[in-house]
Amino acid sequence: MRYLSFRDTTGAIRAGVLDPDAPGKVHDVTDLLPPGEGSPMRRLIAAGLDIGEILGRAPVLDSGGITVTAPVPDPTKVVAAPVNYRNHQSEMQQASHIDSLGVFLKAPSSVAGPGAVVTLPYHDRRFDQEGEFAAVIGKTARHVSEVDALDHVFGYTCLLDMTMRGGEDRSVRKSFDTFTPTGPTLVSPADVPPIDELELHLWVNGALRQRADLKDLIWSLPKLIAYVSSVMTLNPGDIVTTGTPEGVGEVYDGDRIEVEVTGLDRLAVTVSNAGAVACPTLGAGHGPKPPAELTPVAERG
Amino acid sequence: MRYLSFRDTTGAIRAGVLDPDAPGKVHDVTDLLPPGEGSPMRRLIAAGLDIGEILGRAPVLDSGGITVTAPVPDPTKVVAAPVNYRNHQSEMQQASHIDSLGVFLKAPSSVAGPGAVVTLPYHDRRFDQEGEFAAVIGKTARHVSEVDALDHVFGYTCLLDMTMRGGEDRSVRKSFDTFTPTGPTLVSPADVPPIDELELHLWVNGALRQRADLKDLIWSLPKLIAYVSSVMTLNPGDIVTTGTPEGVGEVYDGDRIEVEVTGLDRLAVTVSNAGAVACPTLGAGHGPKPPAELTPVAERG
Repeated sequence: MRYLSFRDTTGAIRAGVLDPDAPGKVHDVTDLLPPGEGSPMRRLIAAGLDIGEILGRAPVLDSGGITVTAPVPDPTKVVAAPVNYRNHQSEMQQASHIDSLGVFLKAPSSVAGPGAVVTLPYHDRRFDQEGEFAAVIGKTARHVSEVDALDHVFGYTCLLDMTMRGGEDRSVRKSFDTFTPTGPTLVSPADVPPIDELELHLWVNGALRQRADLKDLIWSLPKLIAYVSSVMTLNPGDIVTTGTPEGVGEVYDGDRIEVEVTGLDRLAVTVSNAGAVACPTLGAGHGPKPPAELTPVAERG
Repeated sequence: MRYLSFRDTTGAIRAGVLDPDAPGKVHDVTDLLPPGEGSPMRRLIAAGLDIGEILGRAPVLDSGGITVTAPVPDPTKVVAAPVNYRNHQSEMQQASHIDSLGVFLKAPSSVAGPGAVVTLPYHDRRFDQEGEFAAVIGKTARHVSEVDALDHVFGYTCLLDMTMRGGEDRSVRKSFDTFTPTGPTLVSPADVPPIDELELHLWVNGALRQRADLKDLIWSLPKLIAYVSSVMTLNPGDIVTTGTPEGVGEVYDGDRIEVEVTGLDRLAVTVSNAGAVACPTLGAGHGPKPPAELTPVAERG
C-alpha cells in the first residue's frame, strides 16, 4: 500500500491512500480516522487500522488534483545515521563511523515534501545533498530487539538529508527549514523488496551523483532501529533514516535533486538561495572534510 | 503567573495555573482551552489567552493532591546551547564555543518532570549534570530580531541537561529518555527579575556544585532565540535552553540533583542506574574533556 499526505483547498493536511488497482486515484481516509495526536497521517499510523477495510468507505480523489506534502509532516523526531556506509566514511576522511558516533537528530521543522524548494540560508557556506532510505515508525518502540525491529516500521520513503558543511553541531547543520525533504509516498514494507536487494540513486540536474546498495549499510536498518529505541522512545510517525553513501556534493541555486530507492516513488526537489545571508556562526573550514570535487559514479572504484 | 501541567486520576495530562493570591491552590484551566495540537499546556500557550480572564471560571484544586509533570511534556523541539559560559568552556578544555558550534537538539522524548528519576542507561560511561535556565516559546518565531526575541517567550523554567561524556554525537549523548528534566513550573517573564540579575544554583546531594550569573552567558537569551529562529521555525511550547556554567560533574545512582534560578521554582530529581547495561557505542575517551575532579564552588577563581 502507498500512503500520502496532501493539502485540501483550505490548506488543511489530509491523509490518503493510493488505490492499489486504479492508478491516479487517491482514497481520502481522513474523516474515517479516530481522534488522536498530530496530523491525519500520524493518527492513521498510530491507529493501526486495517486500511483495506476502510478504503471502500473513503471518498476517491484524482491524484492530479491534489497538492502532496511530506507523508508525515509532523514527526515528533527525525533520527539520522551520521556515517553509515564505508565508502562515505572514506570520502569524508572521517576516522569515526556510526559505531562511535551513534545517531543524531534533525529538527522536525526541517521536514519538507516532494516538490519542495530547499532554501539555502547562507551565501558563504557549502551545502551538500545526501540521499537516503528512511523508515517511518509504526508503533511505539522502546528497547526493541533487532529481530523485532522491522515489526515497528509502518513504511519506507526517500529522504534528502540536506547538510551544511563545517564545524557547527550536526543537528543544526542539518536542521534548517526545508532541509529534510521526504516522500512522495510511504510504501508498506510488504510492497518493497527485501532491504538487502534495494538500490539508491540520486541525480543532480539529471546527472547520477550517488548510487548505493542498501546491503552496504554498516548498521542495517534493524540494528539502527534497535539501537535508537535503546536510547529514546520512538513514537508512531517518527522517522529513522539510514545515512548516505558516497557521492555527496555541493548544490547550488536552481539545482534539481532527485532520489529514488527500489520500490519507492521518486522524490524531486529544487534548490534556491533566495534570501541567503552571511552565516553568523564560525564553523567554516572545520568539521568533517567533504570531497573537494565530484567523481562521476562511473569512475569510482 | 506560574503554570504547571499535572496528571489527573486517569493519567491524562492537564494544564493548571497557580492561584496568585491563594498559595497551594491550582486552577485547572484544561476544559476552558480551545482545541488544538498537543498537550493542554501547548494549547494554552498557542491560544495566547488572557489567563486572568478565565481563571475565575476554572475549577480549583489543592496542589498537594496532584502529580506535577513537565510543564510542557511534548515540545516539538528542545534546542540547547553547547558552550555558552566562558568558565564552562575552559573547564571542558574546549577550543570552540557557541559562536562556532551553533546550537544542538535534544529529543522531545527525553523531557521529564519534577521529581523524575533520571535513569542512566550504561554502567560503563560517565554521566554529568548540567543545570540550565530555559525559555519556553510563546508564539511562532521565524527570523525574529534580538530586540523582538523576548516577546516570543511564554515563560521560564529550570532545566537539567543530563549528558553522557564521550565522542558520540551531542544529540544522542543528551537524548536518553529522562535526560531533560524541566519544571516544576513555567513562570511568566513579568514575574521574573531581568535576566541579567538572575543567578543559577545547582546542588548534588545538598552540596553546591554550580553557581552562575545569567549575565555571563556568551550569547544572551535574546541573541540565542534570534539565532535559533534564523535556522528553524520555533513553535509555541518549544524549549530553548541557555547552556550550563562551570561545575559540571559526574552523578551516580541515588544522587539527588536540585536546580534553582532566581524567581523560578526549584527543580529536584533523583538519579538511578537501574537496568544499566554496557554501552554499545565506542565514543568513550573521545569528545570534549570534562573536569576530572570537582572543585568546590567556594574555591573557584
